[in-house]
Amino acid sequence: MSLIKEVITEYYRIPLPEIMEDAKHGLHTHFEVPIVKIRTDDGREGVGYTYTGGFGGKAICSLIANELTHILVGKDASCVESIWEQMNWGIHYVARGGLASFAIAACDIALWDLRAKKADEPLYKLLGGASNEVKCYGGAIDLNFPLEKLLRNNQKYLDMGLQAVKIKLGQKTLAEDVERVAAVRQLVGPDVAFMVDANMSWSVEKAIKAAREFLKYDILFLEEPTIPEDYAGYARIAEETGMAVAGGENLRTLTEFHHMLQYGHVDFPQPDASNIGGITGWLKVAHLTQAYNLSVSTHGMQELHVSLLAAMPNAGYLEMHSFPIDQYTTRPLVINKDNGMAVAPEVTGTGVTFDWDKLAPHKQQY
Amino acid sequence: MSLIKEVITEYYRIPLPEIMEDAKHGLHTHFEVPIVKIRTDDGREGVGYTYTGGFGGKAICSLIANELTHILVGKDASCVESIWEQMNWGIHYVARGGLASFAIAACDIALWDLRAKKADEPLYKLLGGASNEVKCYGGAIDLNFPLEKLLRNNQKYLDMGLQAVKIKLGQKTLAEDVERVAAVRQLVGPDVAFMVDANMSWSVEKAIKAAREFLKYDILFLEEPTIPEDYAGYARIAEETGMAVAGGENLRTLTEFHHMLQYGHVDFPQPDASNIGGITGWLKVAHLTQAYNLSVSTHGMQELHVSLLAAMPNAGYLEMHSFPIDQYTTRPLVINKDNGMAVAPEVTGTGVTFDWDKLAPHKQQY
Repeated sequence: MSLIKEVITEYYRIPLPEIMEDAKHGLHTHFEVPIVKIRTDDGREGVGYTYTGGFGGKAICSLIANELTHILVGKDASCVESIWEQMNWGIHYVARGGLASFAIAACDIALWDLRAKKADEPLYKLLGGASNEVKCYGGAIDLNFPLEKLLRNNQKYLDMGLQAVKIKLGQKTLAEDVERVAAVRQLVGPDVAFMVDANMSWSVEKAIKAAREFLKYDILFLEEPTIPEDYAGYARIAEETGMAVAGGENLRTLTEFHHMLQYGHVDFPQPDASNIGGITGWLKVAHLTQAYNLSVSTHGMQELHVSLLAAMPNAGYLEMHSFPIDQYTTRPLVINKDNGMAVAPEVTGTGVTFDWDKLAPHKQQY
Repeated sequence: MSLIKEVITEYYRIPLPEIMEDAKHGLHTHFEVPIVKIRTDDGREGVGYTYTGGFGGKAICSLIANELTHILVGKDASCVESIWEQMNWGIHYVARGGLASFAIAACDIALWDLRAKKADEPLYKLLGGASNEVKCYGGAIDLNFPLEKLLRNNQKYLDMGLQAVKIKLGQKTLAEDVERVAAVRQLVGPDVAFMVDANMSWSVEKAIKAAREFLKYDILFLEEPTIPEDYAGYARIAEETGMAVAGGENLRTLTEFHHMLQYGHVDFPQPDASNIGGITGWLKVAHLTQAYNLSVSTHGMQELHVSLLAAMPNAGYLEMHSFPIDQYTTRPLVINKDNGMAVAPEVTGTGVTFDWDKLAPHKQQY
């Protein structure tokens, strides 16, 4: 038994090296990293965290510090899934998805870090260990990049050894989007997997028109063509065009994924542990995708997701997101140059170790 | 034009006069009231607020103070629905329902208070004014009341002039629930509307068994028999038993209601302005229920909902909730003794005026 004796909540707001843009969120200037340290009476510390694109991080920290901490302290840290249920039901009236899924995520990831440390195992083995590698694509927030910079950035991904890339869509005209897609396909050649992402910005009618244009460029999937609540719309876009559709970064619960799969259509489900209640929530979605005979992919948080995806028998693609988290951890994402795959860390625990000295200047009150 | 110049966020945590219990949330000892005051450059102040059952209020205040305030200040307060969209999209990555719907609600209600004050109209007229009265039931959190106290409490509702009552279900055995239902039906007689509420505590199979037992007591509706995510389950419970089903207090967006109606089944939708993004969100759900040929009812917040429901051509039932808000406002809910209906306030604005002296001892930092 390892009783939780202390929960420490910290808030970091980190400036981006350059302003990034996508179709629906507009300009990004910062990202936020709420961090939770859970200490047990046997002297261990687990570290968990979540992300935002710049908004809501202080409220996430408030929810952890004022509500979840009471639920955690005194519990046996070994019973991770039971604690996850208790967190969800303990605050359920303001939870059931939304912001609470981020707060629960940070706590849950800290508990998994403790579990892996106690087991003296790297996370990818603790979760099943189907492999220690997973397919990976470079996914920049590049809507505002001029064409030349867009190509340079994708060449950078190829130079890193990646064999898959993704670009943002949502220029003023569809013709401009098509021009960028054509140029990137020409750059990367026919053998590199190529995805596109509209960040929810289109109507269903526009998405169908666009998907038909993109088919000729051998696009692996069209991500978030419209808002994720429109289950019927996702089904129409995929089934009327033959374009594979991806989504999930804006679904916050297992049942939201279930409903999207049951009533809608997603070929590449992309749960994100940082916003779906942590590793426990992510695993439930991964199992659901297997029930639907689909692979599971991820959004963001590549430093952690690499271990989750590598462990899965139905692993899809890891997104290498462009928030510069690698500058603040001790192990930047490792790409196997021979096959373009991302490699899970072998160290005990989640394998995500923050460089606290580099983070320190960005710590703020919440 | 009335420009928003200041947004003041306050947090109140109010003890309940007695501990209340329901089947899924357990014991209630306090309720929280986050309050927002929005001041415009023409010297007006609008007051909005939300509720919780004791958890999450500080995070709601954090979200308003740290994120929504930036979105509000400088905007034309007249454009309420546009501001609602901007709040939803401005924080959407941590929003799309959940806790954010409470924070947006408090701000939106303040904007409607300003709109009604500027128009010099009571809210029920500004929203359409179908009537100034609405059917009302007494809804206590009474699962832990011994039978004698349960009957005494329902007699109190009858003495107030109410012609409808609701009790909580979820005793250890179904036989105990049936005994309480039979006793309350005997007390109130055949002409009083009688509803029951399981607060999500049952499996679908158990709910179907229970609903069949309750049919013989002429129950108007069975509320939240199981978790609201189980759309198919709600459809089975209603359609396999013939028992009308109610729900909605745990749905946080227009699309969650739409999905419940499209893929599931609710006979009495019960949106709550305090957790569905305020009056703007509530109205969208009310219009949706009309599209489905249903009445619209409410959960909690009777002091405000009385004006919303009275205004609607398809008004269902107002719940008179048992949080003692009437002790902290200048106008306790008015019941027309002739017909048992609740009467909307005639004053300019939302008609909810807090007694700040009585609230003051319960104000806390957030």
